[in-house]
Formats: sequence, C-alpha cells, structure tokens
Amino acid sequence: MKPPVISAFEPPRRILMGPGPSDVYPQVLSAQAKPTVGHLDPLFIGMMDELKQLLQYAFQTRNEMTLAVSAPGSAGMETCFVNLLQPGDTVVVCRNGVFGERMRQNVERCGGQAVLVDNAWGEPVDPQKVEETLKTNPQARFLAFVHAETSTGALSDAATLCALARKYGCLSIVDAVTSLGGVELKVDEWGIDAIYSGSQKCLSCVPGLSPVSFSPAAVERIKQRTRPVQSWFLDQSLVMAYWGGGAKRSYHHTAPVNALYALHESLRVLAQEGLEQSWQRHQEMHQLLKQGLQALGLQFVVAEPYRLPQLNSIYIPSGVDDATVRQQLLRQYNLEIGAGLGDLAGKAWRIGLMGYGARRENIALCIKALEEVLA
Amino acid sequence: MKPPVISAFEPPRRILMGPGPSDVYPQVLSAQAKPTVGHLDPLFIGMMDELKQLLQYAFQTRNEMTLAVSAPGSAGMETCFVNLLQPGDTVVVCRNGVFGERMRQNVERCGGQAVLVDNAWGEPVDPQKVEETLKTNPQARFLAFVHAETSTGALSDAATLCALARKYGCLSIVDAVTSLGGVELKVDEWGIDAIYSGSQKCLSCVPGLSPVSFSPAAVERIKQRTRPVQSWFLDQSLVMAYWGGGAKRSYHHTAPVNALYALHESLRVLAQEGLEQSWQRHQEMHQLLKQGLQALGLQFVVAEPYRLPQLNSIYIPSGVDDATVRQQLLRQYNLEIGAGLGDLAGKAWRIGLMGYGARRENIALCIKALEEVLA
Repeated sequence: MKPPVISAFEPPRRILMGPGPSDVYPQVLSAQAKPTVGHLDPLFIGMMDELKQLLQYAFQTRNEMTLAVSAPGSAGMETCFVNLLQPGDTVVVCRNGVFGERMRQNVERCGGQAVLVDNAWGEPVDPQKVEETLKTNPQARFLAFVHAETSTGALSDAATLCALARKYGCLSIVDAVTSLGGVELKVDEWGIDAIYSGSQKCLSCVPGLSPVSFSPAAVERIKQRTRPVQSWFLDQSLVMAYWGGGAKRSYHHTAPVNALYALHESLRVLAQEGLEQSWQRHQEMHQLLKQGLQALGLQFVVAEPYRLPQLNSIYIPSGVDDATVRQQLLRQYNLEIGAGLGDLAGKAWRIGLMGYGARRENIALCIKALEEVLA
Repeated sequence: MKPPVISAFEPPRRILMGPGPSDVYPQVLSAQAKPTVGHLDPLFIGMMDELKQLLQYAFQTRNEMTLAVSAPGSAGMETCFVNLLQPGDTVVVCRNGVFGERMRQNVERCGGQAVLVDNAWGEPVDPQKVEETLKTNPQARFLAFVHAETSTGALSDAATLCALARKYGCLSIVDAVTSLGGVELKVDEWGIDAIYSGSQKCLSCVPGLSPVSFSPAAVERIKQRTRPVQSWFLDQSLVMAYWGGGAKRSYHHTAPVNALYALHESLRVLAQEGLEQSWQRHQEMHQLLKQGLQALGLQFVVAEPYRLPQLNSIYIPSGVDDATVRQQLLRQYNLEIGAGLGDLAGKAWRIGLMGYGARRENIALCIKALEEVLA
C-alpha cells in the first residue's frame, strides 16, 4: 500500500456555542503543547497531585478518590457504574433526556436492574416521583440521575435527590458533565457518592477527560466487591495505585500527559476566577443571551426555574430549516450552535454558554448572526 | 472550600528514551494546540476520514473498521476483547511479559476462559507450543498475543502465529502497541483479525489514543453477538455510527478533538517518511545504540534474533543502584530511560528508540550520559 498524500489540518477559529466542546481558553491550548514528560516523571507526579487538589476544589469535596479518567465523559459515567454495581443490583435511574437513558444502558450492561423514573424532556427530575419509586423498591442500592441534562438544558435538584437517596439507603450516582463549573455543585455538602464530569464543557478544556469523585461510602462499596470490576481499564482499585500512590505510583496505563496539562491549566483558571464567581458569570451571561433571544421572538424549551444558564435550548421557529440555519452560522460566521438531540432533534437548537464561551462578545455575535440568518 | 493557589506547570524539555511516551514530534505538539472545533463540524469529519486512511496505511490494511479509540492502549486492548468475546468463549493467550498477562485478565473479566501459553520473559512466543495448545483445545475461538512485548523488548512472529490461528479456526487478537511504525507489521497480508496500538510509542504522538483495526471476519463475529458488549463506551457497533457514518455521523461520545489533530499529524509524518523507511531507521538506530551499549559492557536481555530495535532491555550491572542511576540521568541530563517491569523490575533498564526518539543525537547523549553516570 502506498502512503496517502494528505495536507496538514488547519482548523479555522470557530466560536463554539454548542453543547460542547466549548471555546477552549487560549492558555489551555498552549499548556497542552508544552513538552511531553514521562507519566512517572517526579515533576509530572507533582503536577498530578496539584490536579487532584484543583479537582477537589471544583467538586467542593475532600474525597480522596478524586481524579480524571483518561477518556471522555461517557467513560466517566461507565467508571461509576462498573465500579459500584455488581450483577443483580437494582438502580433507580431518573430519565429526562439522552443521558438518563444512557445511564439505564450502563446499568443493564453491568448486569444490574434499572427501575426508571421518567420525566418529560425539558423537565427536571421530580423528587416526589423519585421518593415513591424508592419507597416501593426497597431492594434498590443506588439512585442515579443527571444534574444538568445536556440534551435539554434542564437542571435537577441534586441536593434534594441525594438526601432522598440517603433516606432510602441508596448511594447516589450523579452526572455533572455539563454542570461542573457552570452552576452550583457541592459534592460533600449535598452528600453525592459518585460523580463524573467532562473536560469540554464549563471547564473549557480540550475534550477527552472525565473528572470523577467517589465518597468514602462509595469507596467502601468498591472495596466490598466480591467480583472483579468488568472493565480492567476503568477499575478504580487499579487506577488508584497510580493516582493515589504519591511518590510510589505504580504503572497502570500511560496517562494522557498533555491532556492533563490542559486540565490542570483550565482548573487553575477556574480557581483564579473562583467557583462562585464562575457560577455568577454564567448566570449573568445567560440573562444577556435570554434578552437577545426573546427580542428575536425565540422561545425556550425549559421553564425558567429549571433552566440551565450554560445550555439554552430554544425551539426552532416554524418554517425555518434546522440544518440550513446551522450551516449558515458555521460557514458565514464561524459560529457553532448545537442541533437538538433525541426527542428534540429537528425541533430545537442548543446554545451553549460554557466556561470561556460565556462572554459578552460571543453573545453579541450569536444574537446578531441569528438575527441576520433568520431575517 | 478555598481555591488552591497553584502556579502554571512548566515541564522541562526531557529526552524520552523510556518505553513510552516517546519524544513527540514538535509539529505534533503544535498541531494539538490548534483551535478546537466541534466534533461534528464538517471540517473535522473530513479530517477524521483522512485519519482513517492514514491509520489504514500504518496498519497496512483495507479494513473498514479502522479507527482510534478515544483512550490509551489499554482501552484499545479492552476494545478488542469486549467486542469479540462472549461469556464462555475460550481464548488461547500467549504470555511472555506484562501485556500477555493483562490480556488474560481482560479475557476473564469478559467471562471468557483463558488457556495460557507461557514463555519466559525476554523470549518470543513459541509457535510450536501455540500449535500444541490450539490442537488440544479445539473449543478455542481466539488466539491472543503481543507482537512486541514492551516489558521485555522481545518480538514475536506475528505472521506465523496468525497462520496458526487460521489453521485452527481461531480469530487472532494482536497487541501492536510498541510495534506499529517501528518494525514490519502487515495486518492484511498476515491475516490479523483484531489489532490495537498506542499513540505514544513509535508514532511519537501524545499519549491517550489507541488505533485499532478489525478484519471483516472480526466484524462479522461482532455482528453475530447475542449479548450486548459489556462496555457502552467501547461498543464498536455504536462507535462506528460516528467514525463510519461519513457525512451522516451520529453522536456517540465527544471525540478528543485536539488529540486527534495530533494523531493526524504524527501519521502524516510517518506517511511522508514511508513505513519501510521508518522500520529501516529504527533498525539502523538500534545498531548504533547496540554498539555504544556493548562498548560500555552492557548486556541485552533479549537474544539478537528476537530483539526489538525500538525497545532495548539491558541488564543493570551488578553493584549499580537502579533508581539512583535513573534519577541522575533525569536530573542531570534531562534523559528518561525506563525501569524494568514485573519480573525484570530492579534487574533491567528499558531504553526506547521510538519514532522521533530514534535519532542519532539521542543515542549519542544516552551513551555518553550512561558512561558518565556509571563511571
């Protein structure tokens, strides 16, 4: 076979206002391009210790088992389920969008039983329904739900849901892919037992990593397993010999060194801004975007009390072609907004205001470009 | 919790001559820092189509199911096992180092039965032993082996082993993490059914991605599964709806966009050099290194006919402290060489000559630094 002749890839500078990846901080892109060092280099190990502190801050937790899975958010989801579940375990899974459904699939692939609590797309998880289900399923060992549904833009009340999990003797498993850094999230205060997120949303890091954290109760559950975790790669008892080993780290897999530089830098930016300030900024930018969208006559999918500032789902006006508009925004303005997913495909757009993307110039561009394209 | 105050990480410029990550091409680091675009952006999809062509060239295959898993090599290994195996399947696993043992663990975590063919560390897999085992285990459905054992530096005869697999009605599963790009490897000609590699060895890309390829027979086996793949994240029938979907790609997980830029660039460098030329260069640089090491009186672990040019295991001279020497090389010369692993821990060093690392100035530095430190 002959070698293919292929030119270097030169991506344009897009403005990323979809559901993620979001605009990456310039300093994060530069950090990633720094020279690669070995994954057992003492300097790198020092950086990983800092990274753990930064992740603990972002999650607001003192959990020892806090780290970044070397793969995207869906692997972070799988990390939580494969480590905690054993075949036959019952999990109450809340489903109000794509990612609740993905949780159900994970439960079943682990040999678990999923008991579903369904809410309509665009609505938050209903705590009352959850409590009824927990009450009638005393065999349930876990409650799993999505904090911020990326497919709809609805925010659920994680503190209340985790309190319910505790009340009924369940551990909580929480999807915080889109919430981390963008809205209030307090792992220890709310009593979250297992949580996963993604690097490419409100952290404005490059895609490919999944921050996770496990409470002492979750770690205890992992220790009490009688069967090995079905995934070797995601087995946290093996991974922790590397992440948690201090100076004596032992080899598990080769860490994605440069991607971890990027995560370190993006979390530094978050720590410098301050979590509360970041939540506040996302809210303020959302208000600005909302005014602009409403002035254009566009309607939100999610009711105001549950609306995520960082993921704005709006109905596509009747008579407007979904794909044509998104293509025009991309080609003429280098602006990416997201298509609808699942039940909302073809019916809604998703406008992200995540991390570095949540700034005034992006909103001005987005509103003006939509105005021109929809005119 | 207060935000931790942490400075930017400024890694030094190391010379990476361990078992990987290897020295990354400067143009690959720059490629990775290019602006992030969306994972469904038409321009990005075009880049992924090119990436597939480049991977097919590197593997010397026309396999349609050729792609990069969004996680390191150990996830590539797991991708092969979880997609192909069903509970109860028997796999003949060849074990002559760390990675054969890891294959066994993967088989068992999939509910399969591993029948082991053991060879000593530092020796290649013995085809005669393999044939005897295949003959006495007619229920076996797969033969799994490591082409280039990273833990020892031994090369096994993949063409002969794959022919044996075929003769006994087995599909072959091959670990090419360290071989791809460094020594002859011909997926179609040798009849390899499932193969995985890593980005951070002879491709000299950043760590974190795992190129994989499945033959039509392997794809057929995946299609005939009666049980879902136990991993949602690694389920190739889902992943291919994204990688194989052409313009109509559907969302599975968010691709690690910037890491894929890097892989595209590193494979472009390989295609520009030419595969055969790259294999030749690794061999020539190995000869140079060998002369230098022998002049210092150092002994190879692996016998010459099976010795990998890209991974040179040498015995630590008696009376020399392993860790002290490696620390001195790192601190005084910014030079990383690898420790021994498993059976060879404390007994051997592993000197990598991989991809961009396999060049004359690295060898000169390595020999001179070793000479000074061992003096």
